[in-house]
Amino acid sequence: MSCHPFSERVKRCAGLMKTAGLDVLLLAKPANMAYLTGDGRLCAYAMITNEGKVALGVPSTDVEDVKRLACFDHIAGFEDEVGMIHSIAHHFNHFGIQEGSLGLEYTFLTHSLMAMLTHPHGKPAKVVAKDCTPILSELRIAKEEGEIERIRAAAHVAVSGMTAAVKALKPGLTESQVAAAAEYAMRHTGADEFWRTYVCSGPRTNIAHGLPTQRRIEAGDLVMIDIHPIVNGYSADICRTVCVGRPAAEQQAAYNLYLQAQQSTIAHVRTGVGMVELDEILHGIIRDGGHGDHLFGPTIHGVGIEFEEAPLPPGHAFFHGEKAPPPLMTNAVIAVGNCGLYTGPWGVRVEDTVVVKPEGPQILTDFVRQLEL
Amino acid sequence: MSCHPFSERVKRCAGLMKTAGLDVLLLAKPANMAYLTGDGRLCAYAMITNEGKVALGVPSTDVEDVKRLACFDHIAGFEDEVGMIHSIAHHFNHFGIQEGSLGLEYTFLTHSLMAMLTHPHGKPAKVVAKDCTPILSELRIAKEEGEIERIRAAAHVAVSGMTAAVKALKPGLTESQVAAAAEYAMRHTGADEFWRTYVCSGPRTNIAHGLPTQRRIEAGDLVMIDIHPIVNGYSADICRTVCVGRPAAEQQAAYNLYLQAQQSTIAHVRTGVGMVELDEILHGIIRDGGHGDHLFGPTIHGVGIEFEEAPLPPGHAFFHGEKAPPPLMTNAVIAVGNCGLYTGPWGVRVEDTVVVKPEGPQILTDFVRQLEL
Repeated sequence: MSCHPFSERVKRCAGLMKTAGLDVLLLAKPANMAYLTGDGRLCAYAMITNEGKVALGVPSTDVEDVKRLACFDHIAGFEDEVGMIHSIAHHFNHFGIQEGSLGLEYTFLTHSLMAMLTHPHGKPAKVVAKDCTPILSELRIAKEEGEIERIRAAAHVAVSGMTAAVKALKPGLTESQVAAAAEYAMRHTGADEFWRTYVCSGPRTNIAHGLPTQRRIEAGDLVMIDIHPIVNGYSADICRTVCVGRPAAEQQAAYNLYLQAQQSTIAHVRTGVGMVELDEILHGIIRDGGHGDHLFGPTIHGVGIEFEEAPLPPGHAFFHGEKAPPPLMTNAVIAVGNCGLYTGPWGVRVEDTVVVKPEGPQILTDFVRQLEL
Repeated sequence: MSCHPFSERVKRCAGLMKTAGLDVLLLAKPANMAYLTGDGRLCAYAMITNEGKVALGVPSTDVEDVKRLACFDHIAGFEDEVGMIHSIAHHFNHFGIQEGSLGLEYTFLTHSLMAMLTHPHGKPAKVVAKDCTPILSELRIAKEEGEIERIRAAAHVAVSGMTAAVKALKPGLTESQVAAAAEYAMRHTGADEFWRTYVCSGPRTNIAHGLPTQRRIEAGDLVMIDIHPIVNGYSADICRTVCVGRPAAEQQAAYNLYLQAQQSTIAHVRTGVGMVELDEILHGIIRDGGHGDHLFGPTIHGVGIEFEEAPLPPGHAFFHGEKAPPPLMTNAVIAVGNCGLYTGPWGVRVEDTVVVKPEGPQILTDFVRQLEL
């Protein structure tokens, strides 16, 4: 397979590693491995040196499949956990790394995975672990044109999912059945997978992470649908709120206010704008509209290989091991409308995926924003 | 809401905590919170004392929803990460815990989540963290009758998904579209969600974790389908391999061998049998059939709230912070057939969810085991 664009990415990665004083990375997060090698899968790892050399470790069953998909210098198959640790030892040895700094994904690894990757039978004793999350984020925030095309394709699939879900909506259907309509359509229009589908209705539109349940849609319910297909390795993020029937006047007013705030925020998106500044635009409009106490959640997050990735908002960023987000870069891709307006008995939210350009925003998720169907 | 069976579970938990020398647990894993309180959701926590008191922290938007679903003594809503940390401080203070041992889920928490839960503005300095994974596993391994009924319901839904996927199979369909058929059927027969759906075909049946892609099914392909619905909070696990057309003689022979090994292993399931012993039965038959070099992966894992949970096989168990698995307990629920037979160009696998009883196995996933459709 062609090593474009992976060899260039590994080269940039090696440069950032040198600046950060990291000698080698040991990655296990599929999104990061996919970005740097072309393949990211469960139960595998990528070791990357600051000379730009790449070694992969994968289940022995998967070696041929990975050879077809990934760009690398060395590959080892393993049979089980112990074999994985031995292959890590082998690669440290092969690269002549017996001391120095090892970058690990502190925002991805559980304690048990961390114990496996740094097991004394694998990692040399004088190699010291550090967090490499900020390097991977820095690499991935500004998208290449080819990546934007893939996110655009994912956005089209997301719109097909939203179209199917909204078309299916009727009293008597469960929230889960609405999710089924969206997911079925997305798989039929090119999604390989999707991240968690959120569908909530009636009083459940007021909760922060409204996963679908067996609750049956009732006439007059608000329904919030938030979907994230993965197409050719890239994701998109769209959320719409619709009413099954006639919305109450205060629901329509809250929706109009939220939509105005979200669209005004998007209108301000361009290279160099700060995320806190955008937050303030959305919050200001909602506050001025009398719903200041009803906001919950950060306004913006990045979108790419993952539906939620860097740039992350300041509060989240800290706990995800990120630095405070820098001003938006050209070709960053973000979702605007991640926060909701939650009144107590119900909530509304509208979210779109947007590319940051010097001249302004490019909206990728082109689906009508309308409460009443 | 009724606190049965949650108050009894919390009482058992408090007993295990005392034995393990843990003063308090701070749980964030939805499956563990669901088991002990009746509700498990993202971005929430449960603090449990060894006196059996329960405090919950949830997003402020979710307080009313959680009150409806969970059993607890105290609840606090928070607005953001800083608020979450302050609510943790509040609960430590409320319970009068200023020193002692704090149980955390080392097999679930990433470094960043760990930093949040043990932030010095939340956790008192003299409270020391330890892993509580083994306690939660011990609590959850043997299922109550009500839990087995829920797993049985999930197994029925899994069978409906498998029926739909196998019925949909034909040349030209993508692997993702086969997954769509299974998931759509599962959501329409009662699934709230599902764990990752695996569908792989042709040469991809040889890989360890065959997630669906855009590969189109060809006549004569083997197709491996592995699905895991969540119904009323509980999961089931079923895998079947089928051939789209006529299997080659060596494919049929390998399938027959695998099925014989899997079914013989299931036949030996009963209270008191060891997992390594069961492993040996399956491996022995496959070895005797000449495919000893083609096995990959552990034979068995537990099934319950999660589709893959304790008891975990010895290798996995170590890295998941578990003790070596004890002999199977009555009313443990396990999936048998988690390992596959991978020949290189293709693989076969059959997996079923089984309840452990003193008199033998109860198979819950009742779907035909037949390579040729």
